[in-house]
Amino acid sequence: MQYERRPRLTPAIADVRRAVRAVLPADGLVLVGLSGGADSLALAAAAAFEAHRAASGGVRAGAVIVDHGLQARSADVAATAAAQARGLGLHPVLVLAIDVPSGTDGPEAAARDARYAAFERALAQTGAVAVLLGHTLDDQAETVLLGLARGSGPTSLHGMAARSGPWLRPLLGIRRAQTHQFCADAALTPWHDPQNLDPRYARVRVRQAVLPMLERELGPGIREALARTAEQLREDADALDALVPALLDGLPAGLPAGRAPGCRLPAADLERQPAALRQRMIRAAVQRTFGISLDRTHTLMAARLVTDWHGQGALDLAGVRVVRQDGDLVFSSPGPAPIEGHFRSHGTPRHS
Amino acid sequence: MQYERRPRLTPAIADVRRAVRAVLPADGLVLVGLSGGADSLALAAAAAFEAHRAASGGVRAGAVIVDHGLQARSADVAATAAAQARGLGLHPVLVLAIDVPSGTDGPEAAARDARYAAFERALAQTGAVAVLLGHTLDDQAETVLLGLARGSGPTSLHGMAARSGPWLRPLLGIRRAQTHQFCADAALTPWHDPQNLDPRYARVRVRQAVLPMLERELGPGIREALARTAEQLREDADALDALVPALLDGLPAGLPAGRAPGCRLPAADLERQPAALRQRMIRAAVQRTFGISLDRTHTLMAARLVTDWHGQGALDLAGVRVVRQDGDLVFSSPGPAPIEGHFRSHGTPRHS
Repeated sequence: MQYERRPRLTPAIADVRRAVRAVLPADGLVLVGLSGGADSLALAAAAAFEAHRAASGGVRAGAVIVDHGLQARSADVAATAAAQARGLGLHPVLVLAIDVPSGTDGPEAAARDARYAAFERALAQTGAVAVLLGHTLDDQAETVLLGLARGSGPTSLHGMAARSGPWLRPLLGIRRAQTHQFCADAALTPWHDPQNLDPRYARVRVRQAVLPMLERELGPGIREALARTAEQLREDADALDALVPALLDGLPAGLPAGRAPGCRLPAADLERQPAALRQRMIRAAVQRTFGISLDRTHTLMAARLVTDWHGQGALDLAGVRVVRQDGDLVFSSPGPAPIEGHFRSHGTPRHS
Repeated sequence: MQYERRPRLTPAIADVRRAVRAVLPADGLVLVGLSGGADSLALAAAAAFEAHRAASGGVRAGAVIVDHGLQARSADVAATAAAQARGLGLHPVLVLAIDVPSGTDGPEAAARDARYAAFERALAQTGAVAVLLGHTLDDQAETVLLGLARGSGPTSLHGMAARSGPWLRPLLGIRRAQTHQFCADAALTPWHDPQNLDPRYARVRVRQAVLPMLERELGPGIREALARTAEQLREDADALDALVPALLDGLPAGLPAGRAPGCRLPAADLERQPAALRQRMIRAAVQRTFGISLDRTHTLMAARLVTDWHGQGALDLAGVRVVRQDGDLVFSSPGPAPIEGHFRSHGTPRHS
């Protein structure tokens, strides 16, 4: 299979290239995370084209291919993808074989974590400034629906960030069908991952059954609606999260040194905040002090010592004890010592 | 049909009563918005019980029944509901016949608007402090899914507020099935609205097809997950919305008097805010000045004069013109004069 460096400029090719161009840095090396599937193959071709187009000395594009070793012939798939990447003019092309440990959150999460760890290694090895990932608008919509089904709150609805640290996702506004069209237009043969058809995966059921049904019952555009929603929810949460550190740092210092490790938050300071910030302050303080992530139920239990105070006793919040004392919410550890590195407000000098 | 004032205390009856008790004010009159369906009938019975239980001189409960006149026999349905309300000991019981105008947002929206207008009249006539509405957790989940399908952003995912002005929705944590069980346990015969089975309504399709399928494909608890998500999104948006007026009032005053009506926002002030607040500031300033609600696309167009400034010209945002001038975003009306009452920052003295 021979890739034409300059295939005819069809709408699909133009759209994908434009999306890639919008995120490419002015210089340095970027790596395309390439599976060989249509999404990442179109991304790789567009990145190669745009890097080539850039003036010499500008941005360069390489590829990193992860061989999960989970499927028969996975080494062959990786080798084919590597050959395609070289054929596209990407350089360097890294193939990293990984072992996927059996994780606690299921095989999909373990494979994802291992894949990102491999990408991190590739960044370190090559000095690249970013990894381009081929997630499309369809992936984003699926992620939002899966998050919605978990109901773990707005965080689960954010979907994936277009830009987060070294990870760039230029195709979040591109439909999956466009990447397939790109490959067809550019005479590139994508790999078809059999896992993408396996209904044991919730994501596959969302793709094959849930989204088509939603489209049928509620009208077209549901994927775009989900993706738009994710973007706005992410903005809202980012803005609120950004306010919390300053709010916490503005509070008086915590427990005097020498007492049991913990932190305290003045109830009056919590009370004057809207619920969304009050709850984030409680969660962030507990996270900093104990390295524990409170779930919503426990966060609300603690918040009610502020919003519905009628002399309640101490509460156990799965690893953290909270009691209202002298007008403060006092958090302490009922068990082993907390993670030292996460301490705050325990002897920390008051900000400003 | 005779209602036992004190039916056997079943789990469904206990749950609904507890939910109603949690929101009832200490005194004054509350009206139950009663359709005669299971949700509002259970609500009416629980409110009657709780008001009766309260010490004399405490809260009192009445009912308001709206006859939309949209269906054959709607007067009969209203009369039956009124008789049930009186049988439950509610007083006063108002029956208000309304005309539903043909609205621009479809018959459901027009009927809803007319119904709330009737409730407002009932509040004014009786001096009641609140109307209790029978929306359940199932209604909330349906509302969130319908909003998601519209994709009009986080606002459309908030669902309904448990408390908003005079409207109280005590049953948002109660499943619809529990209200039916309540009626069965209390020997109350609810009305079955034929519209609840008409698949021409998107809400009916969500209820009958979409939610059962999501439950099948993604696991049980989807309705609860949607309702939980709605609650948190509402908190987040409320917190952000609450920050905007102070941010706008802290800006320098707007255009000098004598120039075309409009307002200006310093780009530097917008730039230092996170996207969610920047966009809310733009929307709020345009809303205040012109009475126009910018959609997301137009809001982002204006925001890009801050975040992606490269000397662009003036932009038309459906009724408002915006141009970057001397480091400010200057909004002006291309057409007729804006709504005077919504002016701000145009000659308004600076806050504080």
